[in-house]
Amino acid sequence: MKQMIPGLVAALTLLALPAAAQEAALPVDPETTTAAASAVGAETAYIFDTLLFLIGGILVFWMAAGFAMLEAGLVRSKNVTVQLTKNIALFAIAGLMYWIMGYNLMYPADWSINLWLGEIFSFATLDPVGSADLENSYSVGSDFFFQLMFCATTASIVSGTLAERVKLWPFLLFTFVLTGFIYPIEASWQWGGGWLSEMGFSDFAGSTLVHAAGGFAALAGAIVLGPRLGKYRNDGRMQPMPGSNLALATLGTFILWMGWFGFNGASQLAMGTIDDVADVSRIFVNTNMAASAGAVVALILSQVMYSKVDLTMVLNGALAGLVSITAEPLTPSIFASVLIGGVGGAIVIFAVPLLDRLKIDDVVGAIPVHLAAGIWGTLIVPATNPDTSYVNQLIGIVAIGAFVFVLSFIVWSILKATMGIRASDEAQISGLDISELGMEAYPDFVQAK
Amino acid sequence: MKQMIPGLVAALTLLALPAAAQEAALPVDPETTTAAASAVGAETAYIFDTLLFLIGGILVFWMAAGFAMLEAGLVRSKNVTVQLTKNIALFAIAGLMYWIMGYNLMYPADWSINLWLGEIFSFATLDPVGSADLENSYSVGSDFFFQLMFCATTASIVSGTLAERVKLWPFLLFTFVLTGFIYPIEASWQWGGGWLSEMGFSDFAGSTLVHAAGGFAALAGAIVLGPRLGKYRNDGRMQPMPGSNLALATLGTFILWMGWFGFNGASQLAMGTIDDVADVSRIFVNTNMAASAGAVVALILSQVMYSKVDLTMVLNGALAGLVSITAEPLTPSIFASVLIGGVGGAIVIFAVPLLDRLKIDDVVGAIPVHLAAGIWGTLIVPATNPDTSYVNQLIGIVAIGAFVFVLSFIVWSILKATMGIRASDEAQISGLDISELGMEAYPDFVQAK
Amino acid sequence: MKQMIPGLVAALTLLALPAAAQEAALPVDPETTTAAASAVGAETAYIFDTLLFLIGGILVFWMAAGFAMLEAGLVRSKNVTVQLTKNIALFAIAGLMYWIMGYNLMYPADWSINLWLGEIFSFATLDPVGSADLENSYSVGSDFFFQLMFCATTASIVSGTLAERVKLWPFLLFTFVLTGFIYPIEASWQWGGGWLSEMGFSDFAGSTLVHAAGGFAALAGAIVLGPRLGKYRNDGRMQPMPGSNLALATLGTFILWMGWFGFNGASQLAMGTIDDVADVSRIFVNTNMAASAGAVVALILSQVMYSKVDLTMVLNGALAGLVSITAEPLTPSIFASVLIGGVGGAIVIFAVPLLDRLKIDDVVGAIPVHLAAGIWGTLIVPATNPDTSYVNQLIGIVAIGAFVFVLSFIVWSILKATMGIRASDEAQISGLDISELGMEAYPDFVQAK
Repeated sequence: MKQMIPGLVAALTLLALPAAAQEAALPVDPETTTAAASAVGAETAYIFDTLLFLIGGILVFWMAAGFAMLEAGLVRSKNVTVQLTKNIALFAIAGLMYWIMGYNLMYPADWSINLWLGEIFSFATLDPVGSADLENSYSVGSDFFFQLMFCATTASIVSGTLAERVKLWPFLLFTFVLTGFIYPIEASWQWGGGWLSEMGFSDFAGSTLVHAAGGFAALAGAIVLGPRLGKYRNDGRMQPMPGSNLALATLGTFILWMGWFGFNGASQLAMGTIDDVADVSRIFVNTNMAASAGAVVALILSQVMYSKVDLTMVLNGALAGLVSITAEPLTPSIFASVLIGGVGGAIVIFAVPLLDRLKIDDVVGAIPVHLAAGIWGTLIVPATNPDTSYVNQLIGIVAIGAFVFVLSFIVWSILKATMGIRASDEAQISGLDISELGMEAYPDFVQAK
Repeated sequence: MKQMIPGLVAALTLLALPAAAQEAALPVDPETTTAAASAVGAETAYIFDTLLFLIGGILVFWMAAGFAMLEAGLVRSKNVTVQLTKNIALFAIAGLMYWIMGYNLMYPADWSINLWLGEIFSFATLDPVGSADLENSYSVGSDFFFQLMFCATTASIVSGTLAERVKLWPFLLFTFVLTGFIYPIEASWQWGGGWLSEMGFSDFAGSTLVHAAGGFAALAGAIVLGPRLGKYRNDGRMQPMPGSNLALATLGTFILWMGWFGFNGASQLAMGTIDDVADVSRIFVNTNMAASAGAVVALILSQVMYSKVDLTMVLNGALAGLVSITAEPLTPSIFASVLIGGVGGAIVIFAVPLLDRLKIDDVVGAIPVHLAAGIWGTLIVPATNPDTSYVNQLIGIVAIGAFVFVLSFIVWSILKATMGIRASDEAQISGLDISELGMEAYPDFVQAK
Repeated sequence: MKQMIPGLVAALTLLALPAAAQEAALPVDPETTTAAASAVGAETAYIFDTLLFLIGGILVFWMAAGFAMLEAGLVRSKNVTVQLTKNIALFAIAGLMYWIMGYNLMYPADWSINLWLGEIFSFATLDPVGSADLENSYSVGSDFFFQLMFCATTASIVSGTLAERVKLWPFLLFTFVLTGFIYPIEASWQWGGGWLSEMGFSDFAGSTLVHAAGGFAALAGAIVLGPRLGKYRNDGRMQPMPGSNLALATLGTFILWMGWFGFNGASQLAMGTIDDVADVSRIFVNTNMAASAGAVVALILSQVMYSKVDLTMVLNGALAGLVSITAEPLTPSIFASVLIGGVGGAIVIFAVPLLDRLKIDDVVGAIPVHLAAGIWGTLIVPATNPDTSYVNQLIGIVAIGAFVFVLSFIVWSILKATMGIRASDEAQISGLDISELGMEAYPDFVQAK
């Protein structure tokens, strides 16, 4: 991979140039554009911008279901109920914690103890009934709704990696810390107007702030927790533990792909001008193209390298394409989006066996998809966005990575030392559904073995 | 529970006061607000309002799929095909009946025999092609589309309770009556400008009109039909009959949660002013918060009371939170929404075993979720909405409950006396899929027992 | 069937008359309507129209998941992984091919070699960042996004028919040709301003251009490929091969139904006037009514003809209702929509056994649903739309059918002669999941036989 990246950077830079040149050559009159924008009217623009957040928020909400189905499909049948429970519970916890702590930590400029208490015990100060005003260009409630979903997504990423051996309650306690503190603090550095945004870091919809951050938290957990019982055998070979329901895994991938239109598209934050809504359209197209390219590259590479197509690689290739384009879905041309997403798909193919060589057990491939492709997507931004720099991108990734990884490592270690985080060998053999919940996901069906 | 409610009412009332006080203190200039609203323009507002109905209608349509998946996941594998058939058939029947009968029964002010016949044999009188006008503030077709989905939701609730022993055709005949007559008549009392709305009853999106009504119809059916064979054993203990696919049940819950943003949000009926769209945002936030709180309360209570988390309780807790906030998702602060939804989650935990003690067999827990939490949500409205009264709320619940329960009881009894509604013991043992349809849902999989 | 159609045409024509008469009698002032439309403002209308494409595009994207679930549910468990792989891969390939070839082939008026190369290597010429203008009434990117999804839908239809015996890579190569060449060329005849549109052919959202076209491609493939091993026995009887997961099949149907609101609704292409958005509403209502009628007719007919309701017939009945109304969802009254969709449901009931008599093996019933009902829907347009003629409709169907069928037949024949398209008997017995991918969809579950 290392040799490929500089070449690709050069290729993308070249490809971006004609686009920029063409734009410069087009008879775009900035005054006309501004006039067009103002012609919409502030109230109408407010409604459009708010609607974008609401539709986007629903779509990102839907990604929680996507993660639940993807993970339920990729774990063995004896661990499905626990995996489902983790996914719905983490979303509910994220919702509460983002309200109590996250939103205020993330936007510290607006923070005061009185305001914070007021917001917790009454939301009226933000968005009183029937008292919208045009001070903001959108309803504060709609922004809160949208941002909350990003917080939940970060937690969803962790549950997949640690599946099949982490106990329910320690996982939920980690979610509590991640959604209430770790995510909001690192996200505030960029989206809350913090030092990263002042420095010039660029991460449009969160390749690093959401996806790599979730991946770093998952990586820390995987190291502290250790691999599943029997995954890495003494003879150095890996024990395959295939997912129990590839139909659900595919459904989950389609759901995530669908939700990503909201994730990236509504991160434009506005559609109240023709420029903004055209940008949202462009983001939709680029997002779809990157996902398609990631899937096709993983399809072809899995055929070439293993002589057989691997559906889980195709699914993760599509997701890696989506993660890759998330840092900058607006400025790339379609061709650049295809390259960015395609490289994301390739990264998955190479990162999955690499993790296994390092004996880091990632059940669903969340670290290759969200961490590795998230870093790639963030690093490549300057190839198409001239307002960014590779140095700033690297600083942002390292800072967020170090912060999330170290804090997560500490929290997982504390949980391990106090209540224990790992299901016993017996529990793993019988399955967490029996040991943790006493409730099978598919009780009517005879299971193999 | 009885001791809890007055205390909670008091708590919520107190909590609402600061919010109201804060609002009063805010420099809201009503004239500015009105000016802002009128600045959008009647045509633009018309498009926004219509779009809200269309998006909302799609989301509530999607709830039909949610019910189908929830119920398919919570019945035993031998009854899945019948459950799926009921769900898609009831939606189709609801669509036809709401057109033929429901819409006109529900809005009696607009009713005349000529108009009714005209509307059935041609929709042109409501919404002729290319002839929209501004007499309404939205397209009549979009309202019809949205209202139709509510009618279908009411029927969806019934199918879950009566699963695994009610025969297909009597169930569909009951759906015919429920969607064509019972629901539209009781809904007309409030949403058709009838006596309940004149009295001052308040039910924003239908905690009682839709959810408790569906629950009352289900309760009547469960009593007339009796429990599943073998559910309540002679020794007084209950035979567990676990759901066959908790992944589908979880998917169904996520779908319902998603659809609820349309259910509650579009019940604002307008987003053509900044006030309206900010209210829709607030409704989204409160809806999400109530669901999250319901899920977390059910998570914790099932751990505390039974020493193990019960995923089906968490799912139903989230749904009960959603039902609870449906009667008034606009006026509560976030904190009040969390309390309202959290109590909803607790109600499920207590109502499920209570129903079993009464030997009322509710396969998916629809009566606790939709009836019990629906009543709770409707009763608590005056705690946050000063324009309502507990007496009026109680009258509305009793009136709708009595009407729906008595009529449903009569219809179920007639169906029982004429064609029979209960599958034979042999049919229940072999499964309704074989006895009713001759078609298994999972024919390739070896079933336990 | 043949005797029914003329009678129904007459009935529909009669029914349409009163509607037209009523419209004429209504006090619609065209000047007011025009004034109302222009009052929205060009920029605001641009945003609305673009938003319609974006929402519609997401919904049609979602149909790809619907096809995947429908088909995964209707094949036997040993072929599920391959079916899922085909569905996600074909969508990704369609995305890339529609960008490289399709979009430019479909809109030949805009085509030039320089522009084409420019568009492929940079999308900037169509929709540069921050340079939207009002030359188009919507963002070009949003139209591209929406049109791409239609191209993918055409390919999704093929995969179901050919399931359980076509090999993966030849199928994907056919998809390459279908999405890059065959679909865009025939679609250009109508939607690209080609000879069919000039002649007066009418196909609002693609009953023929998308659905029948996909069905013709599937039919050609089914003939070249032959039936599944053992499907048609030597004794002349048919071997039932029931679908392995009817819950997934039902979920897929609900997803398709949901997506169809975008498919038909956004094909209005505009919602920036009150007339347009009212028309979108009308389309939503008619689409839902046709689906409901198709489901109910299939429900009743399967009971009457086979004495037992057949869930797969009900699902396909709903889908056939949707396909039937797709050629003209705007002009029919609700009553006409119910008739059109209901006939579609009946067509499925009769066409499924007819295909089996012809020994054309269509695993999921895609040819009855998409081809037969697509032709029916296209033929019946003149009954409600006076601007069309039966002759023109027939010419369009024959032209597109001949073009797609012949080209598809040639491509399938070349693939058969070169790389081979049919899985061996051994592979079909063991299942394509093992032979093609070495990866089972449900490895933890004990399979029957």
